[in-house]
Amino acid sequence: MTSFQKEFTLKAYSRGFHLITKEIMQEVKQELSSIDIGVFHVFIQHTSASLTINENADPSVRVDFESHFNDSVPEHAPYYTHTIEGSDDMPAHLKASTLGSSLSIPISHGELNLGTWQGIYLCEHRDNGGRRTIVVTALGTLSKH
Amino acid sequence: MTSFQKEFTLKAYSRGFHLITKEIMQEVKQELSSIDIGVFHVFIQHTSASLTINENADPSVRVDFESHFNDSVPEHAPYYTHTIEGSDDMPAHLKASTLGSSLSIPISHGELNLGTWQGIYLCEHRDNGGRRTIVVTALGTLSKH
Amino acid sequence: MTSFQKEFTLKAYSRGFHLITKEIMQEVKQELSSIDIGVFHVFIQHTSASLTINENADPSVRVDFESHFNDSVPEHAPYYTHTIEGSDDMPAHLKASTLGSSLSIPISHGELNLGTWQGIYLCEHRDNGGRRTIVVTALGTLSKH
Repeated sequence: MTSFQKEFTLKAYSRGFHLITKEIMQEVKQELSSIDIGVFHVFIQHTSASLTINENADPSVRVDFESHFNDSVPEHAPYYTHTIEGSDDMPAHLKASTLGSSLSIPISHGELNLGTWQGIYLCEHRDNGGRRTIVVTALGTLSKH
Repeated sequence: MTSFQKEFTLKAYSRGFHLITKEIMQEVKQELSSIDIGVFHVFIQHTSASLTINENADPSVRVDFESHFNDSVPEHAPYYTHTIEGSDDMPAHLKASTLGSSLSIPISHGELNLGTWQGIYLCEHRDNGGRRTIVVTALGTLSKH
Repeated sequence: MTSFQKEFTLKAYSRGFHLITKEIMQEVKQELSSIDIGVFHVFIQHTSASLTINENADPSVRVDFESHFNDSVPEHAPYYTHTIEGSDDMPAHLKASTLGSSLSIPISHGELNLGTWQGIYLCEHRDNGGRRTIVVTALGTLSKH
């Protein structure tokens, strides 16, 4: 069995949903290649941004994600009591927990075993979230070559 | 430490929430039995179907899941821009990310350590989603017998 | 590689969102300290309570979580068919699947590698949920000291 872990900071993204599969693969491609079978864990160290897996092709899907989550988790809900950090703050916390702070993806023969249409999204819920820190960890068995 | 991984395709399910604990256990029962302590990871390779854990007894719970998610993620929302694949497509993507594409379950003494009332649901969000591919991975330490 | 697993029961919490990072760390602090790199898995063996990671500082965030999820997953929805266990039961199942039954957190140099503001929440969705059982599992590589 083997493991590796890496911590890195993404560039600052605007509020919305962003495909970051390539950014993550650049950080781990070489280390992943030595693992035959395992699990790849991606964790975001924040409470107002999140991670999800969804369609990697048509950008209109990501646009509709932003519209849907703004609609179902509104700013200025009458019952919010945590309002001192701005109107985008409390909805950001709620969206982050609805979508989740980590992803786990199977590793098969040195690669992430995602489906054809699956990509990793950074879900930036704040207006000015800044740069977000990601911790990736892989656990698995080594390839025999 | 040991690992195993298996990829398989479920039969096609109708739109709705379906208990698939037995289908998954059939695929992995033997391999699981050799692991003393570990984590079992279930991953669905799609972006319009998802996985969750919920009540394994009364089928009315699964009926109400379908009603609730249709109500909170409607078809024909006025702000959808991704509409070319049918009215059930964009809601399916949103439901899939809300529920998630993977599950992680503790392995204890060769078995999944689920609570008494917990079962694994396939959440089929499309009208005609077809057969869905699952990748299961187990990581853990071997039993000593 | 190494592993450990522990099962324990929390005290009964009232309906709402509760920070339980300290309760969990008390159970695992010593065992965690021997792992250099790994993943820590927290699993709740119930279908009407859940786990999430969110802000660990201002208690008003947890108050607003309870308000939001009561608003978006109402009691007495006209389409519920699973009603025999009380009006808080079906919403509890739906909230549990929306938030999820497990968390995975990176382990780095013997500690949980959470962000500064991240804490572990028990999300108790029932009026009288009673004591909840948690299974924690750590998988990783040993420290060399």
